[in-house]
Amino acid sequence: MESCIRRIENDIENITKITATPQMGCTRFSYSKEDKQVREYLLKELEGLRLKIKIDGVGNIRAKYVDGNEDKPSIMFGSHIDTVANGGKFDGLTGVISALEVMRVIKENNLSLKNPVELIIFAEEEGSNFGITMLGSKVLTGKYGLEDLKKIENDEGISSYEIMRNFGLDVENIGNDVLKKDEVKAMIELHVEQGGILDSEKIPIGIVKAIAGMKTYKVSLKGVSNHAGSTPMDLRNDPMVGASEIVTYLEKVAKEKGLPSTVATVGKIHCQPNMPNVISGEVDFYVDIRDVEADGVETVVKELEKKTEEIVLKRGLKAQIELVGESDSVRLSTKVIEAIEKSALEKGFEYKIMNSGAVHDSAMLTELTEVGMIFVPSINGRSHCPEELTDLQDIKLGCDLLLNTVIRLANE
Amino acid sequence: MESCIRRIENDIENITKITATPQMGCTRFSYSKEDKQVREYLLKELEGLRLKIKIDGVGNIRAKYVDGNEDKPSIMFGSHIDTVANGGKFDGLTGVISALEVMRVIKENNLSLKNPVELIIFAEEEGSNFGITMLGSKVLTGKYGLEDLKKIENDEGISSYEIMRNFGLDVENIGNDVLKKDEVKAMIELHVEQGGILDSEKIPIGIVKAIAGMKTYKVSLKGVSNHAGSTPMDLRNDPMVGASEIVTYLEKVAKEKGLPSTVATVGKIHCQPNMPNVISGEVDFYVDIRDVEADGVETVVKELEKKTEEIVLKRGLKAQIELVGESDSVRLSTKVIEAIEKSALEKGFEYKIMNSGAVHDSAMLTELTEVGMIFVPSINGRSHCPEELTDLQDIKLGCDLLLNTVIRLANE
Repeated sequence: MESCIRRIENDIENITKITATPQMGCTRFSYSKEDKQVREYLLKELEGLRLKIKIDGVGNIRAKYVDGNEDKPSIMFGSHIDTVANGGKFDGLTGVISALEVMRVIKENNLSLKNPVELIIFAEEEGSNFGITMLGSKVLTGKYGLEDLKKIENDEGISSYEIMRNFGLDVENIGNDVLKKDEVKAMIELHVEQGGILDSEKIPIGIVKAIAGMKTYKVSLKGVSNHAGSTPMDLRNDPMVGASEIVTYLEKVAKEKGLPSTVATVGKIHCQPNMPNVISGEVDFYVDIRDVEADGVETVVKELEKKTEEIVLKRGLKAQIELVGESDSVRLSTKVIEAIEKSALEKGFEYKIMNSGAVHDSAMLTELTEVGMIFVPSINGRSHCPEELTDLQDIKLGCDLLLNTVIRLANE
Repeated sequence: MESCIRRIENDIENITKITATPQMGCTRFSYSKEDKQVREYLLKELEGLRLKIKIDGVGNIRAKYVDGNEDKPSIMFGSHIDTVANGGKFDGLTGVISALEVMRVIKENNLSLKNPVELIIFAEEEGSNFGITMLGSKVLTGKYGLEDLKKIENDEGISSYEIMRNFGLDVENIGNDVLKKDEVKAMIELHVEQGGILDSEKIPIGIVKAIAGMKTYKVSLKGVSNHAGSTPMDLRNDPMVGASEIVTYLEKVAKEKGLPSTVATVGKIHCQPNMPNVISGEVDFYVDIRDVEADGVETVVKELEKKTEEIVLKRGLKAQIELVGESDSVRLSTKVIEAIEKSALEKGFEYKIMNSGAVHDSAMLTELTEVGMIFVPSINGRSHCPEELTDLQDIKLGCDLLLNTVIRLANE
């Protein structure tokens, strides 16, 4: 049994033309007009397969194929359909389209499976609306509840609760939709790598062993704002130069003191008053630190704290370091990894056992079930940008591997 | 003859309560509602003194005291009334209020002077509307004309021409208002220092010898935007770390390779897409370099270019360095400096001959006439911020010195 590359191509084409930013990448936030259109397309496809469909209060879509096996736990598979602003065509959508294709092949072959199979489409993975990533899978696994959704707001101060309700979702009852351990036997997510390892090594498949943990800090440095012309160099307390020293040092630490898997990034910075002719009074920047090994993260955190203290003393600044986001690293299920490996060997696909630097929805399910992930290559490692690209042949390979693995696990 | 400290205090109080940002410093942009109110206050005072008032097309206010000497060139004195966003109470206003007080004392003493005296209030010095500093004095001295004003736009894309016209100014005829050499004998501007030299040395008066020249560059570094989690450290082309290295290096160059008078500042930075979990694709920052000696500026410019080239090669980035602003350093008039010194000695005021790191309106007039400047101390060197402060006693001293010097020059 094989997936059909034309159907996959057709789905990608139909969905990626729905974007809030034509010619400037895919922008498809959860609960937007574009999200509504894509959901309509996918629901029509799923209904055509006569699956048991359920949409929960946060907007996750679940579509189950039950065939006299409803008392047994499902093999779940899927990913997310939302994007960042001006993101790429592939990202989570690749996993959703692959899951849809797997379901089509299973249904058209009238497969009788021991366990039910269930497609899942997660809502609001990217955090584009409320700054909180993986909100759909966090609600599904009970990490956030109704009261949290009333407090979480977008930049305009509108609560996620209100936005979901206005989107037509039954938010009040999200408590009833929390996934239970006995509902699911395994979860497999196919996703694009979003890094350049598979592409640079020319390997079409990655089997994920662990997902990196992360800590995100907001560092605020306060100095003394002053006139850029009339303040001599030795009478300055300039937080911009302080911030620059820390940014430069963090790269050095991640490269030289961290583990080979450690990464540290400053991708967001803001300075006040942000005028060319005024020495900054305050500079805020975010430090994103990730590693599959907790030690790697902790090394960078300690060095960030030490360096900031040193800079503050040297430059007469004030500093605040605030932890604004955190997730632990997770090991994926040996059982599922072995199942994917067996399928890859059976199909004759070359693969690499690797880590994921990005966190994914399926990582939220590791406490409830056996979780595995399949990566397909991102060309030049580009992701979250209009240049994001994955070869259609690689998506077909990944999809065939997902199909084989789902059937293997459902018949065990 | 002396100025009256109570009148000065009263003027400052009446004017500084007019701000667009109460409790958050003075915000009084040219052509704003607040500007209109302050103009009304000042014009009422000037009309009360029965001066010959003229408002030119860019909004500069000129108020002349003619007493049978209209065929002779004026002694001009004044400063500007506009502020930066959330600026201080003193800045240009100190020089405007002092000039008003000088005019009051001259008139109430019925002084008969050889030359006319003329108060000037410059419009749009800070560049808060259009990003171009000293627009009022540049138009007055013919550096910008009508066609330029039609091209210069604010952030909303509205031309300065349109904004001035809507403010009720006769922009069409600005060509007729250009200052001629034979109209003016000397120009003296009193201003707060905006640096910490006088305050730290406890000297109440600065006599300015030279005004620093400046070059402002916009540096754009383009790299490869990518996922902060899944892109290993050695597969990155991160413009943020490149920018940080340049910022840190510029401070070192200004301190160690420049002259003691050289300053270099990065006060504005912007990164794209500016998200904590995405490696930046582009970072733009502004470099403001100033010195009274052209050599000091050129040293930093060369090092900026050299370092940027090095960073681009090392990190696989693309760079663009664009000169966005420039003014030459100027020597002020020996004749006016000597007149101010004589007055200070006569009054028994302690003073310091010094440079100005900031550029001022009067610097625009050096090609036309003899220009001098008087500085009064900025407490802790703070300026362009709500904490900006100058002692009222120091303003009175500066005002008395201005009065004595204006009379001296008008009777030479």
